[in-house]
Amino acid sequence: MKLIRWGNPGNEKTGVIINDLRYDTSGFGEDYNEDFFENDGLERLRGYLKANDGKLPVVSSDERLAAPFGRPSKILCIGLNYAKHAAETGAAIPAEPILFMKSTTSLVGPNDDIIIPKDSLKTDWEVELAFVIGKRASYVSEEEAMDYVAGYCLHNDVSEREYQLERGGTWDKGKGCDTFAPMGPFLATTDEVPDPHNLRLWLKLNGDILQDSNTDDLIFNIPFLVSYVSRFMTLLPGDVVSTGTPAGVGLGLKPPVFLKEGDVVELGIEGLGEARQVARAYVKS
Amino acid sequence: MKLIRWGNPGNEKTGVIINDLRYDTSGFGEDYNEDFFENDGLERLRGYLKANDGKLPVVSSDERLAAPFGRPSKILCIGLNYAKHAAETGAAIPAEPILFMKSTTSLVGPNDDIIIPKDSLKTDWEVELAFVIGKRASYVSEEEAMDYVAGYCLHNDVSEREYQLERGGTWDKGKGCDTFAPMGPFLATTDEVPDPHNLRLWLKLNGDILQDSNTDDLIFNIPFLVSYVSRFMTLLPGDVVSTGTPAGVGLGLKPPVFLKEGDVVELGIEGLGEARQVARAYVKS
Repeated sequence: MKLIRWGNPGNEKTGVIINDLRYDTSGFGEDYNEDFFENDGLERLRGYLKANDGKLPVVSSDERLAAPFGRPSKILCIGLNYAKHAAETGAAIPAEPILFMKSTTSLVGPNDDIIIPKDSLKTDWEVELAFVIGKRASYVSEEEAMDYVAGYCLHNDVSEREYQLERGGTWDKGKGCDTFAPMGPFLATTDEVPDPHNLRLWLKLNGDILQDSNTDDLIFNIPFLVSYVSRFMTLLPGDVVSTGTPAGVGLGLKPPVFLKEGDVVELGIEGLGEARQVARAYVKS
Repeated sequence: MKLIRWGNPGNEKTGVIINDLRYDTSGFGEDYNEDFFENDGLERLRGYLKANDGKLPVVSSDERLAAPFGRPSKILCIGLNYAKHAAETGAAIPAEPILFMKSTTSLVGPNDDIIIPKDSLKTDWEVELAFVIGKRASYVSEEEAMDYVAGYCLHNDVSEREYQLERGGTWDKGKGCDTFAPMGPFLATTDEVPDPHNLRLWLKLNGDILQDSNTDDLIFNIPFLVSYVSRFMTLLPGDVVSTGTPAGVGLGLKPPVFLKEGDVVELGIEGLGEARQVARAYVKS
């Protein structure tokens, strides 16, 4: 299945994509959130789709897409998980995964604007494959890890490099600004993605392709990451883990390039769709 | 008001402490969570207490205390916010606040066991003053910052030093293990704490006092922290910010001392009560 959420911020409804058409599943009566994943929501939704085959209302393609799941308990990210990206930032290839967290208030829809924070000079992009946890995971072995993955989605791990690297402390400061986690267009369940470790991923800035790689270049793969992260904290159903970005971020260009008002970011992952975000300057609301 | 939550894990009820006695407020019908703080819950609870004066059931002192609020959207912590603690860890006094995040799955009651993670050798303690956000905060000025604080509570920012400092990446890896955030015994609303910047805080290990300081030694005070953090991410009602620990952690002792099975940690903050945790080895459940 390909799960979507759609509608205006704060009033999102659920849906699915079938044969490139969007259908409304709000009759199912549950958001795609922690409770949903915890209580076999995917299996129950599959049954609902079967029972309502041919009867679901179509959702207009004009409707805004939201993130394809409700706010998770946490968004974890893996740093420097592609060798060439580590090199472009001047960092060594990590001996074990680098872990950081994004404030969940950064979550937005795949085509929402990226708001450049007030006084920010170094807002940057990072196309990433993210996966969503399907059931509570603590001290999970690598062998059983994939049983804990509900699905995959496209993520732009937007990052303010000065906040992340030059303001003291951990990376968290530059990763959790509002709108810094556009996710979607959809959450693909694992059966839709036979091999998540062989997917092209790419990102364009104003039409120029800047990131173009494949998840077969991941240093630490998904089962390893599930197992590794679950040794340090319990992963809850609906939690998101983003697997890191390949080379081609703004920080790595010579000279570096960062987002400015009106810039258009397009990104995609093979089998996981495409997204398009416009950078906007912060305006006090 | 002094807010508590009590009862078995997963079935917590709400309450208040009045004149050292615990009362059941589950008749109020809401948990102390994001929705509660967002929708003037504190004012409405005040009205409920007035309307039910003398009529609330007493809660037995045998009942387990839970964290005094439901799971927040995030737990943020400030690193190295006392000069002597920065010195004992060998770090410089930070030019601006160090920020990191704890997985919210680490949240437990004030007297629950601290589970030493599997294979952990360096589980450490940190008594801290935490504050809870009362309303959505984004780009808040220092002058208006205190309007965004709902109250204060005692927090043991339990930390695994090898995970935090020796495993690559950010501190988050050593801060979010299960049971690493005992909070409480109660959440004191701001009117109960006329000056949060002049409170003694202390921690004992097996009866020996190891941390003993005062919040007047904070490098960055609460209004500054609210304002500062709100520039990097939006704080939601119910979010927790922990202000850092004074000198006397296990890592700073010569030789270092870390928690082992059966160790008893007692801690307290003037006006915010006391807590007692026993360290236990991890056992697969």
